Amino acid sequence: MSENRRFLLRRRPDGEPVAEDFELVSEPVPELAEGQFLIRNHYASLDPAMRGWMDDADSYMPPIPLNAPVRASTIGIVEQSRADGFEKGQWVMGLHALEDYSVSQAGGFTQPIDPGLVPNVTNYLSLFGAVGMTAYFGLLDVCDPKEGETVLVTGAAGAVGSIVGQLAKIAGCKVIGIAGGAAKCAKLVDRYGYDVAIDYRGKDEATLAVEIAAAAPDGVDVIFENVGGIILDASLTNLAMKGRVGLCGLISEYNSPTPVGARNLWRLIVKRAKIEGLLVADYVERFAEGTVQMGEWAAAGKLVVDEHVDEGLENAYDAFMRLFAGSNQGKMILKIA
Amino acid sequence: MSENRRFLLRRRPDGEPVAEDFELVSEPVPELAEGQFLIRNHYASLDPAMRGWMDDADSYMPPIPLNAPVRASTIGIVEQSRADGFEKGQWVMGLHALEDYSVSQAGGFTQPIDPGLVPNVTNYLSLFGAVGMTAYFGLLDVCDPKEGETVLVTGAAGAVGSIVGQLAKIAGCKVIGIAGGAAKCAKLVDRYGYDVAIDYRGKDEATLAVEIAAAAPDGVDVIFENVGGIILDASLTNLAMKGRVGLCGLISEYNSPTPVGARNLWRLIVKRAKIEGLLVADYVERFAEGTVQMGEWAAAGKLVVDEHVDEGLENAYDAFMRLFAGSNQGKMILKIA
Repeated sequence: MSENRRFLLRRRPDGEPVAEDFELVSEPVPELAEGQFLIRNHYASLDPAMRGWMDDADSYMPPIPLNAPVRASTIGIVEQSRADGFEKGQWVMGLHALEDYSVSQAGGFTQPIDPGLVPNVTNYLSLFGAVGMTAYFGLLDVCDPKEGETVLVTGAAGAVGSIVGQLAKIAGCKVIGIAGGAAKCAKLVDRYGYDVAIDYRGKDEATLAVEIAAAAPDGVDVIFENVGGIILDASLTNLAMKGRVGLCGLISEYNSPTPVGARNLWRLIVKRAKIEGLLVADYVERFAEGTVQMGEWAAAGKLVVDEHVDEGLENAYDAFMRLFAGSNQGKMILKIA
Repeated sequence: MSENRRFLLRRRPDGEPVAEDFELVSEPVPELAEGQFLIRNHYASLDPAMRGWMDDADSYMPPIPLNAPVRASTIGIVEQSRADGFEKGQWVMGLHALEDYSVSQAGGFTQPIDPGLVPNVTNYLSLFGAVGMTAYFGLLDVCDPKEGETVLVTGAAGAVGSIVGQLAKIAGCKVIGIAGGAAKCAKLVDRYGYDVAIDYRGKDEATLAVEIAAAAPDGVDVIFENVGGIILDASLTNLAMKGRVGLCGLISEYNSPTPVGARNLWRLIVKRAKIEGLLVADYVERFAEGTVQMGEWAAAGKLVVDEHVDEGLENAYDAFMRLFAGSNQGKMILKIA
């Protein structure tokens, strides 16, 4: 425990991150102050949102400081503690960093977890973590899907999207998913229960719009948007009257210094529709509600989750970049120990 | 009354309309069927939305057919009638066309009007027409501004924007307007009561964003959006938490075959904000409510309106193009007779 490997942000990425923007260093394990505890991180969540935290932009949380480790949700075991309620040996989840050991304290996203309650402890980074709660509250609270409505999910095979699709089916909706590649599209239908899968690869906006229209002849009542760019524009073209777009992410734009932007906002006027941004941080106080409900559905076999675990802090960059290449097969997780 | 001059759409504009897309022709005055009446049009409203109706696009109303007169709201006097409730000599407003005589019937936007109730009969195309009702219901119903909040209006000196700004002041808000040129900006403050005017001319998105931030250090709670493009993007950068964008129009994009698009939708996530499209057609049944309330405010001197009247059907093209050049000084109206 003398060594703490940390995956540092050395430089702010200009567009797509390159390996040289980061550096894996070894530092001493820090001392604890009163009220703090030390976590041995076992798994870290790799999420598209982390790309935004690397920019020097005013956002919902401060940018990752240069030469600090890359911020990430992790789960791990308390190794030392000077905080009540977090004894040595306790599993904990929280917003920490890509490093062997994180100093943490109570509050915010930090909470004790019980591995005995879930099939795999990593589920606290997927179904029962920020990803699952984003899907749950983002779809059900922000988009308000009603039985019989049509829901379109972009990034449909991704960590959030794959859960959103299943929740929309549970809500009694027709569900259309957009994903990249035949294998992912097959998975949408076979594993996640989507009614229709659309492969966006090699298609322009007009073609995508036609394919969505064929799948949703009466229009799309809800769009759960993870992608942006031409996929969003093609989706907006198919909005039904009073449609609702839950804006969760814009992964296609995060690495672009000059994103294309949404050209079809005028469809919002035509259909008196709305786009609303959503962030899981607003629902922390209701996580227990979401966890219990999602747990019941998972136990009943109505909700499955896929996790893609890469191993080793030394592979953090490659694992992170899978999110943008779309080469991950489920929620992207990095095994640290 | 043997001649009916009609301003026809001969060709769908490719980007910015050119004079050759239209033709002024003379046709016989049509015969009436049972239930119809003939209006001698006196004034027509020229609105940015008409540009959208010229495209062959699926929208909230069908495109203007080729070789048909250009659709427009008009006011005029019944000349002949085979319809109950619309006697010869009655003033009428409705959605007709740029032509001397229109055949009309009861229903839709069509309704009798009383010139004795307003200072000028043309007010039925501004404060008490679609423009005024768009401002009233778009701001108060869709954007829900609260006392003490900050409201940003783009296209602030335009027909809708100039009314929105005054309504936002009546609602007790701080009001910022963006318009083109020093004269319009002076008018925003001196005549419409805006607290701050920002001239967008010659400024890039970053500069505009900084100027908005200076005027709204705590962010903008409501954006009433008429323009789009970099003005929308600069505005989105300044959204306050839970901000609301009422999307009324995107005039900067209507004549562009490849609009830039909104690149800052990610701000909606950061601020859990929303963009909602609005259309006055949804409020036809509540026009009386809006008319009475706006009439009271106008009578009390709290609400002024400016109209820019060009004369003659033969000047329809030039008058319409003022909307995109921004050379009109108030609600653009074409005097037909």
